[in-house]
Amino acid sequence: MPTAPPVAIIGLGLIGGSLALRLRAAGSEVWAHDTSAETLEAAGVHDIRPFPGLEGMLAALPDGSLVVVATPLEDAVALMPVLALLTDDQVTITDVVSVKSAVLEAARAAGLADRYVGAHPMAGTTESGFAAAGADLLREATWVVALEDDTDLDRWVQVCRLALGAGGRVVPTDAEWHDHAAAWISHLPHVLAEVLAANVEPRGLAGALAAGSYRDATRVAGTRPELVAAMLNGNRRMLTEVLESFLDQLEQATVAVRDGSVADLVARGYEHRRQWQARRDGSASTTPVRIPLGDPGARQRLREVGAAGGFIVSHEDGAVTALA
Amino acid sequence: MPTAPPVAIIGLGLIGGSLALRLRAAGSEVWAHDTSAETLEAAGVHDIRPFPGLEGMLAALPDGSLVVVATPLEDAVALMPVLALLTDDQVTITDVVSVKSAVLEAARAAGLADRYVGAHPMAGTTESGFAAAGADLLREATWVVALEDDTDLDRWVQVCRLALGAGGRVVPTDAEWHDHAAAWISHLPHVLAEVLAANVEPRGLAGALAAGSYRDATRVAGTRPELVAAMLNGNRRMLTEVLESFLDQLEQATVAVRDGSVADLVARGYEHRRQWQARRDGSASTTPVRIPLGDPGARQRLREVGAAGGFIVSHEDGAVTALA
Repeated sequence: MPTAPPVAIIGLGLIGGSLALRLRAAGSEVWAHDTSAETLEAAGVHDIRPFPGLEGMLAALPDGSLVVVATPLEDAVALMPVLALLTDDQVTITDVVSVKSAVLEAARAAGLADRYVGAHPMAGTTESGFAAAGADLLREATWVVALEDDTDLDRWVQVCRLALGAGGRVVPTDAEWHDHAAAWISHLPHVLAEVLAANVEPRGLAGALAAGSYRDATRVAGTRPELVAAMLNGNRRMLTEVLESFLDQLEQATVAVRDGSVADLVARGYEHRRQWQARRDGSASTTPVRIPLGDPGARQRLREVGAAGGFIVSHEDGAVTALA
Repeated sequence: MPTAPPVAIIGLGLIGGSLALRLRAAGSEVWAHDTSAETLEAAGVHDIRPFPGLEGMLAALPDGSLVVVATPLEDAVALMPVLALLTDDQVTITDVVSVKSAVLEAARAAGLADRYVGAHPMAGTTESGFAAAGADLLREATWVVALEDDTDLDRWVQVCRLALGAGGRVVPTDAEWHDHAAAWISHLPHVLAEVLAANVEPRGLAGALAAGSYRDATRVAGTRPELVAAMLNGNRRMLTEVLESFLDQLEQATVAVRDGSVADLVARGYEHRRQWQARRDGSASTTPVRIPLGDPGARQRLREVGAAGGFIVSHEDGAVTALA
């Protein structure tokens, strides 16, 4: 009986390491390359096959394998021409970097457009590294699996199945929309947290009075600063647009505060937050929809699922089931 | 043996109710007035003496009593002339409203400058009302007890002892500094949370991708909107100044994001957040200082404790002990 081809992970940091542990726990064959011998040794304990040399790992990959680039953004960009050179056409390339347009551009420039599929599991902690990784980190994680106009649908399904096999749910969208949404819900909150924290002297009156509101508003400023700076840099074009839009809104809010007319803003914020929490808690109703992938309109329908805040929960018999 | 005069609380909401329960648990005599008969009945179960009529409660107060106004800001402002009319000179007035300048102005206008001492225990949840109150809410709470140039020091000590007796620690500052600090660490985070939540469509892609960063950045937008609007309105003059300062900083941050030079901002935010957390966890070192209240410079020294992020932990023999 032929065994399934391995998943080969480059970079066993928090996300790559957690994915490796999760896939191993699910019985998949997992290969891994990392520049740290110590990390590879720790991974070996969990039956993850360690490759000290990247070239050796790539050369050994059978047809149908999946390579997961789980490095920081800059390394991922630099790896694309290497992967184009050292992997076979039958090998699919994905990544788990938190910004997608920059990696997509690098993949296209390297001639990998037809076998690259970008992904981003929405998970993390303020910690980092394999020591902080765990199979639970990606439990029920929401994965963006990017579907561009030129993405090969079979390869897309292969990455989609990786995410589903890791216990995740899949949001289909494209790199541009992903980066726009990520700017709003992750990168902008990071900038707000940094500016707020930078303005409050921890050894003064405000620092002493700061409690829950401040703690939550600045929590992500506790993330390793080089990781935050790299993340913000990676999405800087989209983030700049989003920041300009937020600045406009905040100026309007300032006028409303000055004029004693904040009630409308507060009511809208409250209502959105309440609806978001209800969806999060699963108390909002969802309808299962089956999308056969052979249909001519499949790509468009998949993207509509993502745009409406829906996600794919399973794949079988050439079709996916989405909740929207 | 004469018993200590009672503490009379007006308004058994989240803070007033929690204070009443906490003082009862510590053995103090607690009187309470609330406009809700149901709330008074619930309070009676805990041996809090209920007064359906405010006038009756105020008329019965012995010399040396303390009245705690624990209503929303607008009611607190409206109550000051009533208290001036219906309470004796020997009764001290305090409040637990989250903004201090507006209440202080109302107290002064009512002729209560010499027996009003503003306070603000830094505690809360997104819930409200006596049903959500509990003696634990104020456990180890940080209380601002406002010390103005014209505050009577004996009355200030009386309110300070109330806070210490409730298991809190006391930050001495004045109403203006309190409101400035509160704008930075509480009211500004509320505005940021509302603007962010208002801009993210919960039923779209961004809502589906939103996870920890968004959840924490918008948590306080889940607070009852009428309470948030009233709080922001109550400190609108100071909050407008703080928002303008924050807007400047955020514009600079936007330029830094665009230019790929956010590293300095992120490093500063990280360092402040780390120091704040260390102080919070008690791992930063503090030195006990004894301040005799009879000293001519006592008022100035107390304010310096607050300005340095320190607090008072005990009072005995005409002196307080501060950690700074």
